[in-house]
Amino acid sequence: MILLGELGMRNDNVTRYEAINEIARRRGFFWSSFEIYGGVSGFLTYGPLGSLLKRKIEATFREAFLKPLKMLEIESSIITPAKVFEASGHVKSFKEPMVECSKCKRKFRADHLLKNQAEMSDSETEKLTLKQVSEEFRRHSIHCPECKGEFGQPQHFMTMFVTRIGPYSDAVGYGRPEAAQSIFVEFRRLFEVARERLPLGLVQIGHALRNEISPRQGPIRLREFTIADIEFFFDPENPKCPLLKEFEDETLRLIPGALKHQGVKKPLEVGVKKALREGYIETEWLAYFMALAKRFLNSLGVPDEKQRFIEKLSWERAHYSSQGYDQEVLLDRLGWTEVSGHNYRADYDLKQHMKYSKVDLQVFKEYDEPRSVDQLSIKPILSNIGPTFKKEANRVIELIASVDAQRFAQEIEKKGYFLADDLKILPKHVQVIRRKVEEKGRKFIPHVVEPSFGIDRLVYVALEFAYRRKEDRTLLKFPREVAPIQVAVFPLVTKGGLKKRAQELQMKLSREGFEVFHDESGSIGRRYARADEAGIPLCITVDKLTLTDNTATVRDRNTWRQIRVRVEELVHHLNEYFNHKIEFEDLGKIDN
Amino acid sequence: MILLGELGMRNDNVTRYEAINEIARRRGFFWSSFEIYGGVSGFLTYGPLGSLLKRKIEATFREAFLKPLKMLEIESSIITPAKVFEASGHVKSFKEPMVECSKCKRKFRADHLLKNQAEMSDSETEKLTLKQVSEEFRRHSIHCPECKGEFGQPQHFMTMFVTRIGPYSDAVGYGRPEAAQSIFVEFRRLFEVARERLPLGLVQIGHALRNEISPRQGPIRLREFTIADIEFFFDPENPKCPLLKEFEDETLRLIPGALKHQGVKKPLEVGVKKALREGYIETEWLAYFMALAKRFLNSLGVPDEKQRFIEKLSWERAHYSSQGYDQEVLLDRLGWTEVSGHNYRADYDLKQHMKYSKVDLQVFKEYDEPRSVDQLSIKPILSNIGPTFKKEANRVIELIASVDAQRFAQEIEKKGYFLADDLKILPKHVQVIRRKVEEKGRKFIPHVVEPSFGIDRLVYVALEFAYRRKEDRTLLKFPREVAPIQVAVFPLVTKGGLKKRAQELQMKLSREGFEVFHDESGSIGRRYARADEAGIPLCITVDKLTLTDNTATVRDRNTWRQIRVRVEELVHHLNEYFNHKIEFEDLGKIDN
Repeated sequence: MILLGELGMRNDNVTRYEAINEIARRRGFFWSSFEIYGGVSGFLTYGPLGSLLKRKIEATFREAFLKPLKMLEIESSIITPAKVFEASGHVKSFKEPMVECSKCKRKFRADHLLKNQAEMSDSETEKLTLKQVSEEFRRHSIHCPECKGEFGQPQHFMTMFVTRIGPYSDAVGYGRPEAAQSIFVEFRRLFEVARERLPLGLVQIGHALRNEISPRQGPIRLREFTIADIEFFFDPENPKCPLLKEFEDETLRLIPGALKHQGVKKPLEVGVKKALREGYIETEWLAYFMALAKRFLNSLGVPDEKQRFIEKLSWERAHYSSQGYDQEVLLDRLGWTEVSGHNYRADYDLKQHMKYSKVDLQVFKEYDEPRSVDQLSIKPILSNIGPTFKKEANRVIELIASVDAQRFAQEIEKKGYFLADDLKILPKHVQVIRRKVEEKGRKFIPHVVEPSFGIDRLVYVALEFAYRRKEDRTLLKFPREVAPIQVAVFPLVTKGGLKKRAQELQMKLSREGFEVFHDESGSIGRRYARADEAGIPLCITVDKLTLTDNTATVRDRNTWRQIRVRVEELVHHLNEYFNHKIEFEDLGKIDN
Repeated sequence: MILLGELGMRNDNVTRYEAINEIARRRGFFWSSFEIYGGVSGFLTYGPLGSLLKRKIEATFREAFLKPLKMLEIESSIITPAKVFEASGHVKSFKEPMVECSKCKRKFRADHLLKNQAEMSDSETEKLTLKQVSEEFRRHSIHCPECKGEFGQPQHFMTMFVTRIGPYSDAVGYGRPEAAQSIFVEFRRLFEVARERLPLGLVQIGHALRNEISPRQGPIRLREFTIADIEFFFDPENPKCPLLKEFEDETLRLIPGALKHQGVKKPLEVGVKKALREGYIETEWLAYFMALAKRFLNSLGVPDEKQRFIEKLSWERAHYSSQGYDQEVLLDRLGWTEVSGHNYRADYDLKQHMKYSKVDLQVFKEYDEPRSVDQLSIKPILSNIGPTFKKEANRVIELIASVDAQRFAQEIEKKGYFLADDLKILPKHVQVIRRKVEEKGRKFIPHVVEPSFGIDRLVYVALEFAYRRKEDRTLLKFPREVAPIQVAVFPLVTKGGLKKRAQELQMKLSREGFEVFHDESGSIGRRYARADEAGIPLCITVDKLTLTDNTATVRDRNTWRQIRVRVEELVHHLNEYFNHKIEFEDLGKIDN
């Protein structure tokens, strides 16, 4: 709870969350779209400051993840033919339980009502079948929050947007609910383009769509949002992460599944190495990305103690995941809020697309030297199969062809027969052939670790962690690399050639690649206040002295301290400042 | 026609277009999406090089248009509630004539068939009603190009993607076919955020969707594409463009409507000033943006003589446009191809959204000093209206309230009565009141000029204009600011510590913000060839000498010349080179 008298709100009712949403709307970070048409939930418009902030966060993401691992970025379409999401399992799994009020006909997410009215946890509701949902509704006598009406039977609602591609009405398309699938679908070509190297990180940052039944206000649960998906492919026989040593001393705040299941709320503070040794995290790459994700959130202004990783229990995990941690950030009103998911997708997706497309998506890895390996094959002896199995002979031959040769040989050796359904195959029916063959390499499906970030949530997080009140004014203390606008240039007064001089300096800085804010109206104090509220780290003021000795004042947003700098050194110094090579004091000589 | 022996194609059949598409696929610029599922026309995947190139072009666009005019960028959603596109006129107008073959049931764009089989022009087909399309089909006896079958009656097909928002099946949503409407819909808030300044440029770069009936291959006509829409708002009473003087000497290649109508194919070469004076271009801002667009295309590698602006005739223009020019680029196989549209949208869109939303979207402009103006109002005299009109009295009162007072007073004065439908209002029925009032400013709907670019087409254009053959090898001569990767760092050989040294230099340049390519496999000659083909302007090679005197070789992609540079000066010099402050020769001392 903070004081917000100057915003014209009732102080005692305004949370940090509301204050941030107010400033987001008023200063043009973001707001709910289509206001003039009464609004449609789940859609957000980023105004000028928000659009800059969002792109800065995306750039910071690229610096943090893409550069150190030389990952490759792609851009693909949002509209996707149905086949892709049939293969990926989304058509089957991407749905939520929904109930309709029989009185007012409003529709709600059944699990949200159970959370709000029956105080069940996410983890409890995600486990329920439709039948169990219905029982819980009865048991807790849950009624419509709008009109107190009775609910009908719960149903599943598919939360992908559906459309038709082209003039043929049967060509169903979906709006992608994530950016990952195009990476899997295009993997073959991407792997070639990357000259067949593993490990290989492929990334897509882009819009995605989820037709939420009841989206929340603001940027937290949107129907259209921006996702940053990393699909990191590696050889499952070589799962070591050579970069992990960078993070050996890094501590993660973890709630592993076993503890979560016991109801533990306080995270373990555990080193990356120990987390792997104790089996809290299954694979090194997953641990590496979690450590990187923690530092990335640090760089957006979120301290360690406001972050944690919480494991998904088996029934909470997405259908493709074999281990999953959510990275959560503690927000003022919203509580612990997921900002990224870290899933071990193993070979799930490529396998599914192989199955549905009939295209081989395995990779081939050449051995350093060809290896001599035992090859086992099972050959049916037709002259013995015929008399024993008669009409069933063909079924037996098919069975032998389809079964794993290794397993078949082992069973026959151990038990003296191989039993499948009602067919008992004896040694006399088959010939087990063992051969030495030379293998040049092996074919396999790479495994995938997926860190996936919700960019809109990160925008909100950056805003909330930047938000400060100082002497009844609002400051957005964005870290330097995230600030949407880097510098403001003001003439102290608009007379005496100062305006022109300020414009020249502004143009110069703009040409050098800085995002520059220009403001001539109101007193210099009002202009500083507006700049602080937009989160601009440095304000440069041109005054009478500038015209004679070519110096200007630079003011620090965080401390309001001022410093006098030489204008001709400004570009160089600003570059160093924004690259964290120097601090504010190093920009010049302290003035006051 | 060019020789492409080394690509393993039949030389005599390969056009530049095909060669570019081949390199685009093989090197990972872009390719048709969903190949493993047999492909779906109209969707493109940008691979790593393409995605970098596309983002470079978007950055160049921002530099060229946003910076000089301090325009503000927004980001909004693709899914849009139906109301928005009902108001904008798209639901009514965004459709194409389609015919279905009665034999094979394939569907085609009727106008495309008329162009291909009856040699009609765009301009001719866009004029036709469905009935006329049907007549032309009969007249030219047009049959199915696939199976020679008969076509049924032409129908209109709505080319927006349709979906449903949320669980209520009646909430229709469309995929936006352009990025402009969200700017109009959010104008009120954006205008406030911009502190109510005019002129005001608002911009959105983002995905858009058009459910084309028959999309073309490659990035030219896509179902999902990236559009960069500038909506530039200005006061129609102050339509001067103060920046126009920058372009006074600039020559545009124009085909104005009148000449186009006469069948003229050769553009006029005319100065910007003259184009305005002669009325070829209606407003200064339109002319300004056309000149800027020409220079922007220059910066992507397109020379003046390969560009032109061609006016849209009244029946070819979009429904919102009162004057429109297409900027076209001459491509090798595709001929003159539109890359941007420049439309004078006047007050069309804001007016429509005012009408549909009932929200006032006018802006208020304060006069320097309040003005005294005559205000005219018409007051009904009820005691006379009642007896004359009896049961119709209410209709008369409503009519008087709704009619323009100026017009009413004039008619009554001129004719002695005012006639509306069947109602004849006489002077005795009304009191005409004239009053002096003080006006502080005026309210008006700003006018809009819209330059709109197809980013995917620009990616293709940049690729085609970069494409060169030299000594049987392919070079992509991207301009420095557009090249997806700026530098490659190679060890001459991988032994003797050179590999490590190259990696260090690569990391350093990457941290300094350069996009760096790393390649260790094959001879140095092969690596140079691969770098040339990826359009990398500079290759830096680390050799034995580097370890002793800390110099390296830099090779120019365009000339293959090499130069020896000092490694510690490299970052500084590369920054100057990529900002066009120095040329290749200035990087160091010429070596050979």
